[in-house]
Amino acid sequence: MHKYLKIDPWCIIEEEFNPENHSASESIFSIGNGQFGQRANFEEQYSGVTLQGTYIAGVYYPDKTKVGWWKNGYPEYFAKVLNAPNWIGIDIRVDDEAVDLAKCKVLEFKRTLNMKEGYLQREYLAELPSGKQIKAIVLRFISMSDPEVGAIRYTLSPVNFDSRLEVTSYIDAGIKNADANYDEYFWDEVSRDASGERGFITSRTRKTEFDCCVGIATSLEMNGVKYLQSPKSLERDKYVGSVYTIAVKKNDEVVICKYAAVLSSLYHRKPEIRKDAERVLDSAVEKGFNQLFADHQNEWKKKWEHSDIVIEGDDEAQQGIRFNIFQLNQTYTGEDERLNIGPKGFTGEKYGGSTYWDTEAYCIPFFLSTAPQHVSRNLLIYRYKQLQKAIENGEKLGFSHGAALFPMVTMNGEECHNEWEITFEEIHRNGAIAYAIFNYIKHTGDQEYLSDYGLEVLIAISRFWKQRVNFSKEKNKYVMLGVTGPNEYENNVNNNWYTNTIASWTLHYTLEAIQIVKDSYKSKYKSVLKKTKFNEANEIKNWQEIIDNLYFPVDKNSGIFLQQDGYLDKEQMTADQLDPEQRPINQYWSWDRILRSCFIKQADVLQGVYLFEDNYDTEVIKKNFNFYEPRTVHESSLSSCVHSILASRIGNNQRAYELYLHTSRLDLDDYNNEVHEGLHITSMAGTWMSVVEGFGGKRIKNNRLVLNPMIPEKWKSYSFKINFRNSLIGIYVSNEKVQISNENEIATSLLIYGREYDLAGNAEITLPQMNYHS
Amino acid sequence: MHKYLKIDPWCIIEEEFNPENHSASESIFSIGNGQFGQRANFEEQYSGVTLQGTYIAGVYYPDKTKVGWWKNGYPEYFAKVLNAPNWIGIDIRVDDEAVDLAKCKVLEFKRTLNMKEGYLQREYLAELPSGKQIKAIVLRFISMSDPEVGAIRYTLSPVNFDSRLEVTSYIDAGIKNADANYDEYFWDEVSRDASGERGFITSRTRKTEFDCCVGIATSLEMNGVKYLQSPKSLERDKYVGSVYTIAVKKNDEVVICKYAAVLSSLYHRKPEIRKDAERVLDSAVEKGFNQLFADHQNEWKKKWEHSDIVIEGDDEAQQGIRFNIFQLNQTYTGEDERLNIGPKGFTGEKYGGSTYWDTEAYCIPFFLSTAPQHVSRNLLIYRYKQLQKAIENGEKLGFSHGAALFPMVTMNGEECHNEWEITFEEIHRNGAIAYAIFNYIKHTGDQEYLSDYGLEVLIAISRFWKQRVNFSKEKNKYVMLGVTGPNEYENNVNNNWYTNTIASWTLHYTLEAIQIVKDSYKSKYKSVLKKTKFNEANEIKNWQEIIDNLYFPVDKNSGIFLQQDGYLDKEQMTADQLDPEQRPINQYWSWDRILRSCFIKQADVLQGVYLFEDNYDTEVIKKNFNFYEPRTVHESSLSSCVHSILASRIGNNQRAYELYLHTSRLDLDDYNNEVHEGLHITSMAGTWMSVVEGFGGKRIKNNRLVLNPMIPEKWKSYSFKINFRNSLIGIYVSNEKVQISNENEIATSLLIYGREYDLAGNAEITLPQMNYHS
Repeated sequence: MHKYLKIDPWCIIEEEFNPENHSASESIFSIGNGQFGQRANFEEQYSGVTLQGTYIAGVYYPDKTKVGWWKNGYPEYFAKVLNAPNWIGIDIRVDDEAVDLAKCKVLEFKRTLNMKEGYLQREYLAELPSGKQIKAIVLRFISMSDPEVGAIRYTLSPVNFDSRLEVTSYIDAGIKNADANYDEYFWDEVSRDASGERGFITSRTRKTEFDCCVGIATSLEMNGVKYLQSPKSLERDKYVGSVYTIAVKKNDEVVICKYAAVLSSLYHRKPEIRKDAERVLDSAVEKGFNQLFADHQNEWKKKWEHSDIVIEGDDEAQQGIRFNIFQLNQTYTGEDERLNIGPKGFTGEKYGGSTYWDTEAYCIPFFLSTAPQHVSRNLLIYRYKQLQKAIENGEKLGFSHGAALFPMVTMNGEECHNEWEITFEEIHRNGAIAYAIFNYIKHTGDQEYLSDYGLEVLIAISRFWKQRVNFSKEKNKYVMLGVTGPNEYENNVNNNWYTNTIASWTLHYTLEAIQIVKDSYKSKYKSVLKKTKFNEANEIKNWQEIIDNLYFPVDKNSGIFLQQDGYLDKEQMTADQLDPEQRPINQYWSWDRILRSCFIKQADVLQGVYLFEDNYDTEVIKKNFNFYEPRTVHESSLSSCVHSILASRIGNNQRAYELYLHTSRLDLDDYNNEVHEGLHITSMAGTWMSVVEGFGGKRIKNNRLVLNPMIPEKWKSYSFKINFRNSLIGIYVSNEKVQISNENEIATSLLIYGREYDLAGNAEITLPQMNYHS
Repeated sequence: MHKYLKIDPWCIIEEEFNPENHSASESIFSIGNGQFGQRANFEEQYSGVTLQGTYIAGVYYPDKTKVGWWKNGYPEYFAKVLNAPNWIGIDIRVDDEAVDLAKCKVLEFKRTLNMKEGYLQREYLAELPSGKQIKAIVLRFISMSDPEVGAIRYTLSPVNFDSRLEVTSYIDAGIKNADANYDEYFWDEVSRDASGERGFITSRTRKTEFDCCVGIATSLEMNGVKYLQSPKSLERDKYVGSVYTIAVKKNDEVVICKYAAVLSSLYHRKPEIRKDAERVLDSAVEKGFNQLFADHQNEWKKKWEHSDIVIEGDDEAQQGIRFNIFQLNQTYTGEDERLNIGPKGFTGEKYGGSTYWDTEAYCIPFFLSTAPQHVSRNLLIYRYKQLQKAIENGEKLGFSHGAALFPMVTMNGEECHNEWEITFEEIHRNGAIAYAIFNYIKHTGDQEYLSDYGLEVLIAISRFWKQRVNFSKEKNKYVMLGVTGPNEYENNVNNNWYTNTIASWTLHYTLEAIQIVKDSYKSKYKSVLKKTKFNEANEIKNWQEIIDNLYFPVDKNSGIFLQQDGYLDKEQMTADQLDPEQRPINQYWSWDRILRSCFIKQADVLQGVYLFEDNYDTEVIKKNFNFYEPRTVHESSLSSCVHSILASRIGNNQRAYELYLHTSRLDLDDYNNEVHEGLHITSMAGTWMSVVEGFGGKRIKNNRLVLNPMIPEKWKSYSFKINFRNSLIGIYVSNEKVQISNENEIATSLLIYGREYDLAGNAEITLPQMNYHS
């Protein structure tokens, strides 16, 4: 844990330059627009520790797998998010001295991420080794309104000298991934050109052959007047730039304006990409910095209108939740079904891939409530399109007859990960993908999705479960052997309660889905039967038999659901008995010690209780929560949020709030000492869930929005909005009251604190806050 | 499985040149002398597929670990057997055409490994692309009498041409390990020199700084007359050589004689190593090829006198067993306690390291019976010297108070391996190390070893077991969670029966050893107490409590010992139900599928039954054998031999013989399609065990040799010798009789077929063969 940022409701602020915090800040102050994004690297040369990183959505490279000991079935390649050509570079030299904050005395420094308006600003006053002092304000944004445009305004002032200033604005396409397995370049140059204010480089990824064209245009103003002398062009391998040399006097103000067009062959034909980049750049230059910026700010305004959570009385919590919502919105906008949500978004390289079960388990609930329906639907379609590859993946592992195992980590549907205990055994991900279909339909009512896409996926996953269990004569039940549950601090266990639960649920839901499609979409049902070669009688019978006879480990004495067979053979301890010096245990304990301990990395049984809470009464939930929560070390970013929601559910408001704080400020306060590697983007959706589903008690039941709001003691009030079917519902909760407003014309009805309310268009209801949980 | 070699009782013979077999033959025809050795590479240039490999005992390099996903506790380095400077190179050019069998028409070819006399011979008649035919006989050996000397006699004849012959004899020190993790060179050149017939290169390993000096001397004879013209010297980076150019006529006979001195800094001071190499080379040249060869042959004769197993009536079995004994004897001679027995000896690089539990579980029984006592003792001392590192390894994994975990794979006592399920969990190796102490004392009667060395090791291992178990309230027993047993087709299981058995046995034997040392070596006992900070009262009490309360999984219905908790939940199948196309399963099935299947890689429960057979009556052994043998796929080279011994034990002679064949010809017939990577050296000792302990029923009980011979149906007779204490006992078994001869003066008594016999010095007893098993 490391706190060095100022608390502010709308901004992230760093007020001192400490090189040791720089890589962490580079992650935290990242900006992006769903199409591309980058870490908060400095524009000018920086010789200190930094992870230079620009990333373009959907552009990846299949890096040859690195493995110590090969196992059959491992993927040959690991598809990596690509560190892409860097467009932000603006090197500054004063006479022959480079401005490099690692080598200057930094007298004043402020870095601000303005989340409300979506920009990054940096101010500094630096003294060069020669004693010359220079002052700067640098503003940068990646446009939400012009999705292929980024812009920088770099304002410079000599404080105590007259001198010659050299400004080099460049594109560097000689970029390597820091996490390249074999230290290789993934990009080749296709073309480059530079003349005067402008420069362009088209790069192509090796093997995957994505083209990316970056164009820049850089102009300069001196004391408010455009500097007319044309800059000198620079060109070398994978590098183009423009150099301005200009005489400056003390207190002059030099403003460098840099526009960038960042295009990829996902949206442009390769032969035209250079020309298209010129066009995008023309239009950005024509609009001008101020207009571009205004349009961008306006888009952010719209995003916040729907997705903001306002917390009164607790700026730390407010900052935390907004940071999470901000990062989610700049990582994924939901317009392209080929894209997904990488665990680090555009903020780092670790984990590679773009798609984990995080998307289905955490992000979809967020987007279902805060974004238009097509956003979540695109995330489902992404998996649907990869179904064939999931079936092939299943075949590779010995499954047959159209059984699908979706990959643990992927870019294009092929499995990337290579730890046998995860790749082959953390199969509950298949369940999350089935659940997301159910959840999407529950929220949107879009039943037709089942017949068009969902059922095919469900059948393929159910076939997998069918083949993955076996009948144990010993137990006279079906069992599921050799799995890793969500709690990755157990590997290769038998009868993981969560996995068995979601497997059985999938089979059940698939049977339900078959019935729905059969009844309501007859001709589509026939084509699904045909396409999947579905053996109606047999397969349904087999699945029902498994549903009826699947084994679930339960403690006979207490009735607690057991995480897996043999869990109670472990030495039972609670996390508060751990030596704080040895936490997080994954940084101090050897793997075998973690495995044989009772400590739980993240919600596992409780993940199942959360997903299927309607199946359990409050006493059962309480009993399991009280057993597992003290054993959980929350060393996954996906853990605290689920525990927080359940704590709210059972009325343990204090613990719900503590867990919420942990999840909401995980990156800002760097709980696990790893934020320099990038942010935990997908878990940020979990934070949103802890407020809305936890404190707000939001559920969807029988096609109706359900709320059970409570409020943490420290807060004065909080409010958020929910997109539900065609309604937009505002919820305000204070210590005294709960106010529900229908923010459009369509009447709706809701269940609040268990009571039904009809809410006319644009109407509002106010109720006393009851801090009550069913 | 791939059979292409001729059956012969004393030789391995390849009669046709098939490039596809070449890498396999390079492994099979390997030669060595315990101090260095090499694959059967061709002397002359060969552009086909080959793994060039020369290896020097005890010389290793800590290669940076390669790992896909790092786990806490993994070693930083993997110590590798080093592919060392190659001394055999003799390139031949006819005019300007290289002799390269990959590019010639090979008209005649024969490769012979003469095991009786320990040499490799190759004859060929090859037609070059130009049509010129050349004939050659090449004989090579690595001297058993002059342990730093190797020699080659390369006889050449032009068959159908007169021409200019160019012969380049060289040392190539620019050698890389084929298995280098990062494709780096591990050797630097220290010095080189060449003049006339001689050349020397001293190389130094990076990091470990072993020096190795190779010197060669090459002379040439033409039609029986020494060729007097001095050859031209060649010298370049990491390469020296001598080039003879000579005019030859059809049917001339050119004999190239090459001597090599191969010295390492294990036996020479670095500043003198070059000079010492000259001296060694002088003395070899002076002896001359014939004398060197005769001395070498004589040493092999002596080795065979003690260790041979003669089988009449089954040349295939005869060849198999001799091949195994031959390879063991050329891998390890037991004179240096710093050396151990790598799983591939000098025949390949795979697996790195030099020391696995194979040494204790398989090789020590072989050397105990066939070699002087100090040979096995040196293998024990090797581990004793690494005790401190084993304690440090334990600390790294969270153990304390002098608890030792010996490494799974090591060169110098540090763990090399990095698969968590093996490195951290395959802890039964610790038990094998304790058992070897017991076994050594049982065979030799060297009780004093306990007080000098053994007890310290036993205490450290017992402390490990004590800390590795935990008390399960659920079972009201001690349990051992998260282990991998000998059967590596199960990972991270609970209560592996074998591991629990050997752990409990270790605790028990340590208590016994304490009592022995306390009673008989009082002052040494005190110093062990002090050195180990042994808390006599507490530790003994704790260990006894674990012995009394350790949990062992057993099937309640059948009484079969269960390999681990939950084994019966698996789908029960037998190996004969497997699709033969999918075997070995480790080449066809993904790892998770193997793990959740009931199939067993190698003896696990049966390994324990074998080690502790006195604890179980024949019915129990039979029951467990009949349960586990059909489920075992024997995909480890260490498996069949143990099953074969147990099959003999329970009178299942047919199965014993089948399993013996599998183990004895594993490499010759390439059962698992991997012999090109090197031979399975350590498992070869298991083959010897299947004959001597299996068919011969040899045991040691109450300080007495016990025999229960049977004979496989196909054999006419077999015979072997046993070193036991000061006696040398010859055993001959035919269908009719068993003949036991005391081969020296000391009287002894034995138990044969359960009856006691006194055997005077040089006496012999003959009994009817009873094919009987207690």
